[in-house]
Amino acid sequence: MAGNTFGTLFKLSTFGESHGVALGGIIDGCPAGLKIDLSFISNELAKRRPGQSKIVSQRKEQDEIEFLSGLYQGKTTGAPIGFIIKNTDVKSKDYNHLKDVLRPSHADYTYIEKYGIRHTDGGGRSSARETVCRVVGGAIAKLLLKKYKITVQAYTSQVGNIILNKNYKELNLNTTYDNDVHCPDASIAQQMKNKIEEVRKEGDTIGGTITCIVYSVPVGLGEPVFDKLHADLGKAMLSINAAKGFEYGSGFEGTKMKGSEHNDLFISNKNKVSTITNYSGGVQGGVSNGQDIYCKVAFKPVSTIMKEQKSINKEGNEVVYSGKGRHDPCVLPRAVVIVEAMAALVIADHLLRNKTSKI
Amino acid sequence: MAGNTFGTLFKLSTFGESHGVALGGIIDGCPAGLKIDLSFISNELAKRRPGQSKIVSQRKEQDEIEFLSGLYQGKTTGAPIGFIIKNTDVKSKDYNHLKDVLRPSHADYTYIEKYGIRHTDGGGRSSARETVCRVVGGAIAKLLLKKYKITVQAYTSQVGNIILNKNYKELNLNTTYDNDVHCPDASIAQQMKNKIEEVRKEGDTIGGTITCIVYSVPVGLGEPVFDKLHADLGKAMLSINAAKGFEYGSGFEGTKMKGSEHNDLFISNKNKVSTITNYSGGVQGGVSNGQDIYCKVAFKPVSTIMKEQKSINKEGNEVVYSGKGRHDPCVLPRAVVIVEAMAALVIADHLLRNKTSKI
Amino acid sequence: MAGNTFGTLFKLSTFGESHGVALGGIIDGCPAGLKIDLSFISNELAKRRPGQSKIVSQRKEQDEIEFLSGLYQGKTTGAPIGFIIKNTDVKSKDYNHLKDVLRPSHADYTYIEKYGIRHTDGGGRSSARETVCRVVGGAIAKLLLKKYKITVQAYTSQVGNIILNKNYKELNLNTTYDNDVHCPDASIAQQMKNKIEEVRKEGDTIGGTITCIVYSVPVGLGEPVFDKLHADLGKAMLSINAAKGFEYGSGFEGTKMKGSEHNDLFISNKNKVSTITNYSGGVQGGVSNGQDIYCKVAFKPVSTIMKEQKSINKEGNEVVYSGKGRHDPCVLPRAVVIVEAMAALVIADHLLRNKTSKI
Amino acid sequence: MAGNTFGTLFKLSTFGESHGVALGGIIDGCPAGLKIDLSFISNELAKRRPGQSKIVSQRKEQDEIEFLSGLYQGKTTGAPIGFIIKNTDVKSKDYNHLKDVLRPSHADYTYIEKYGIRHTDGGGRSSARETVCRVVGGAIAKLLLKKYKITVQAYTSQVGNIILNKNYKELNLNTTYDNDVHCPDASIAQQMKNKIEEVRKEGDTIGGTITCIVYSVPVGLGEPVFDKLHADLGKAMLSINAAKGFEYGSGFEGTKMKGSEHNDLFISNKNKVSTITNYSGGVQGGVSNGQDIYCKVAFKPVSTIMKEQKSINKEGNEVVYSGKGRHDPCVLPRAVVIVEAMAALVIADHLLRNKTSKI
Repeated sequence: MAGNTFGTLFKLSTFGESHGVALGGIIDGCPAGLKIDLSFISNELAKRRPGQSKIVSQRKEQDEIEFLSGLYQGKTTGAPIGFIIKNTDVKSKDYNHLKDVLRPSHADYTYIEKYGIRHTDGGGRSSARETVCRVVGGAIAKLLLKKYKITVQAYTSQVGNIILNKNYKELNLNTTYDNDVHCPDASIAQQMKNKIEEVRKEGDTIGGTITCIVYSVPVGLGEPVFDKLHADLGKAMLSINAAKGFEYGSGFEGTKMKGSEHNDLFISNKNKVSTITNYSGGVQGGVSNGQDIYCKVAFKPVSTIMKEQKSINKEGNEVVYSGKGRHDPCVLPRAVVIVEAMAALVIADHLLRNKTSKI
Repeated sequence: MAGNTFGTLFKLSTFGESHGVALGGIIDGCPAGLKIDLSFISNELAKRRPGQSKIVSQRKEQDEIEFLSGLYQGKTTGAPIGFIIKNTDVKSKDYNHLKDVLRPSHADYTYIEKYGIRHTDGGGRSSARETVCRVVGGAIAKLLLKKYKITVQAYTSQVGNIILNKNYKELNLNTTYDNDVHCPDASIAQQMKNKIEEVRKEGDTIGGTITCIVYSVPVGLGEPVFDKLHADLGKAMLSINAAKGFEYGSGFEGTKMKGSEHNDLFISNKNKVSTITNYSGGVQGGVSNGQDIYCKVAFKPVSTIMKEQKSINKEGNEVVYSGKGRHDPCVLPRAVVIVEAMAALVIADHLLRNKTSKI
Repeated sequence: MAGNTFGTLFKLSTFGESHGVALGGIIDGCPAGLKIDLSFISNELAKRRPGQSKIVSQRKEQDEIEFLSGLYQGKTTGAPIGFIIKNTDVKSKDYNHLKDVLRPSHADYTYIEKYGIRHTDGGGRSSARETVCRVVGGAIAKLLLKKYKITVQAYTSQVGNIILNKNYKELNLNTTYDNDVHCPDASIAQQMKNKIEEVRKEGDTIGGTITCIVYSVPVGLGEPVFDKLHADLGKAMLSINAAKGFEYGSGFEGTKMKGSEHNDLFISNKNKVSTITNYSGGVQGGVSNGQDIYCKVAFKPVSTIMKEQKSINKEGNEVVYSGKGRHDPCVLPRAVVIVEAMAALVIADHLLRNKTSKI
Repeated sequence: MAGNTFGTLFKLSTFGESHGVALGGIIDGCPAGLKIDLSFISNELAKRRPGQSKIVSQRKEQDEIEFLSGLYQGKTTGAPIGFIIKNTDVKSKDYNHLKDVLRPSHADYTYIEKYGIRHTDGGGRSSARETVCRVVGGAIAKLLLKKYKITVQAYTSQVGNIILNKNYKELNLNTTYDNDVHCPDASIAQQMKNKIEEVRKEGDTIGGTITCIVYSVPVGLGEPVFDKLHADLGKAMLSINAAKGFEYGSGFEGTKMKGSEHNDLFISNKNKVSTITNYSGGVQGGVSNGQDIYCKVAFKPVSTIMKEQKSINKEGNEVVYSGKGRHDPCVLPRAVVIVEAMAALVIADHLLRNKTSKI
């Protein structure tokens, strides 16, 4: 119950610290016979890899993945898929000055209280470096979903007060990864990039939102009561480092509407049922209804800033420190593929869960 | 994996339909020796009971709870606590005209596709009547939390465009249940009530938000990676009927801030560590830091309206129908105690989970 | 994690004490659309009901089951199936003299140490009365298995030193329930009955074994490593009150054989693969191979005897006591259907689990 | 639910195949602050390592373990402990002649039917090579148990018809690992060794039993109903490759006894409660009572023999084949430490689970 496993039938378990030997994980429950495209997985990893532009962390990690089990002649065998990714660009000494500092809004204080011990080289287990394993799991989930024609696409929809105010249907999501911020509107993307560079130069950081859409989910995924599809999606997203909020469909804005405005009227055309509007965000009663599933995730500004800050040390004495190491001024660009990965894991899990809903 | 159980160590499993014989559940994993105050539980149930004012459903349910096991001489024994609540005011004929209609934004369509069969008397399993069992589980969780001085308080913070724009610290939360909408500001509460009555008269419904605070949570609850405390809280809230969004701490607004503004600086006073601000919402790195935990949940307008709506029937033909039966024009007033219950269940579960974090 | 739930996809959770208001449970994960034959379930319950002959407990329980949810028009709906069975013949005063006694080989001492509190009317949660709920769950599992032509049959194969030394294939298992001991060999059954009556008259008790066969299990059920089919069967059986041992296939005797004798050679006939011998007991590598699954379960003599015994009380002082109440001189006759129920639950669970083994 | 994880709070997940790149696993839920003695772990691994004597497989594996996470300065941090063990002595060509053969009493047939694909180099996931990861998990569990003074000791108690007919209390278990068969009676050990060499020379194999004792388990471990301590022990043991049976305490022999003989009378001495006899095997009502826990596990003769055997191939045609590769003529010697590992995992898990049994 230590919470390092996600999913019930399609399960990802992860291990590894920011500055340890390696990170890795086990994907258990992936059906046998799925062809694994290794270049696709590498490509997914590239989307969150640090060091690719000035607006992300300068850490140089190749993120080369080694699969250790579960595959045979390029296909899954039904056995657990073990994998590791070695840490290569580890500069633990960047953290020597922090061994005793409890950095504000980090996990230093909470971990030391919870465990009585803390891995002080980098963020240890609390580092977002852990998410590299989620991208691996998500990539395999995406390959499974592909067999069912389901696709997942996310993009940066806000950075600070720069907001992409278009509906996802007005955007060409295939251009999302064409720029450094991973926003499918080139003009807004440039403004976002400018904003990130501006705060980076100040030694500061900035937050934002990511929007995610899952297309072609069949009707029936999700369990009615506690494991509603959107509840599991919400948990998945909120478990990503720096996440502060989640909404799907009409979300917080929908609270101001009346039922007569908000209800999604059904239409039937050639035996295919769909809805005219989609305030439901593709989920009704916790179960997918065949329409697009869309949601938005809020991310706070990264806590590690390069400015001087007051804090305390383990003894409770006041200290002044400033961040070193290689950090992201904005988590959003690299988080886009992580959001996609978490969505893919949730949908893949519920796809398998739904195999036993009826006789 | 059918999703009718919540929690890992402190577990609530529920069963029952809107118009079935009875609802009920099992609370498993509650430590032995906890004194159970039955009048407290009844009082909690009263907070969500229908039929108490004009702005909620007129169904008359006594919601009398029968405990069948797990208690001995007023205390928990460590055995599972089984309980039932009989349905007494069942008017299934109110639903006869709906047997074939797929009501917009309800679970009719998704259930029939998922299961191939649907309980057509009322909402069946998808009805919010299920939440009565959550209140029972939450009440027992609250009694456990009380032993640790932890308390949970929620309130209606928005109805439609009527927004309570005060910080929870400016409010007297002990007055929350003094009015029908369960909002601790009497003046705003009256506006909300007027709003609800207005939409009710139109045969329409309205959405809103509930804010929830958990006080005195010890440092260390929550698991770092997938089961972050706020991720489990988010899932808990999103699993409530009609929930559309969740945020904690600075939430969606915090995305516009810079790290230097958003970081919660630590101060140490007489060996007690606290933070000056609390944008973190009491959770850092997924683990509680001893500050107040606060979050907000968005609820859509109830789907059942008394106006005529177009829809389709199971055969895919267009029909016009209007709601009958006894429904809430606004889910908020009755959902306040449900939000509290879900928060209590999450905290109780993590309280137990944290018992094994260190040697 | 309090252990009152069995199964992963087809799940049975139970509650209730020997002398409480009612016992009951929730069956969660049963696929929708399964026709539930209530008279079949009653008939199953009748097979373990006390008071039916002189060789079992004289407690008079009707064991009338009330289904509270999850069924609609005689079929499962996919919603959790809640049920209760009221205790009607409760004589708590039979236990007044035992409130402070720690009865030898009972759970009195272990429960009081574990929980600090104990339900002292009868065995409380440790009573075999709990198994009535297993029979309900098992009956529904059997109905599911029937759709796949899978059947489960168990019988008493030993009582004390009276041993039924025939292979199950030499017996007509349809006659098992024709006599009070539930042994399909009438002559041996009579000897067993005599044995039980003999010990009962002495105020004593006796142990024995039950053999169980599952027919027509498709190839492929069971998970290779920790959740091997026979491992889950073993756990299921060992969780029954008074169970002391479990073996399947060649079992303990097989340890004396050589590999060349023990290997089950394959033969293929009209594309149907089978084995000449079946020392494997229908399971190879933890996965069913299509042959009969058979196993044997050992049960100790019931701990409650009507003779005087020395023991101690809660204060650690020596006491002499003798059993009162209505107890079984031999657990075997009533345990046959419980063994069947547990086998059915395991197979039903793995049947569902296997739905996602391959693409 | 693919069954590659064992335990609920102290959890071991494993991956890896016999002839893959590496095996490995994750230990999740180990409390923080536990000192990890690496030489102890290596020593445990040495006890199951192949190639150490003529009576075991001649495969030469160093079984060098690499810990990748979860440790800091020699102690557990509360983060998941990831580890790998590389396969070094892989001779896949030994299996080329078997690619199409369905070997009798192996998992070839059941895997191909279940997954539609099979790793044909060696046993793949079904190989007992997987148990190397169990020994790692068990070693860490033993280190945790040591903090509570709990110890686990197993030994070979039977090989074929050579039976060690002494009670464990008459033996010096510290001498168990002094000989190749891991039997603490030197004279019987020699007979067992002779027996194994005899069958090995015939190209045959032989079965046997292992006895296991857990000392100093505190009162209160185990959950009353489905997760009884002995049920979880039984499942653990039955999940080991080649296991065919499990009994604890009086086991199958106890079935012949009367209650008056079998009951373990309590005695109290200086406030310490114990029992005169221990037919209960240290578990009453599913919960440990403070007495020694002891059990016995039956293992079948290894299926891979070096003699010619008839079988069929995937097409269903008859073939004759004989085993190649490096196999154990008797699984017992190397299984002793595996049995200990599984026992340690179960007790460690229940130790943690019991932390929340009462307020």
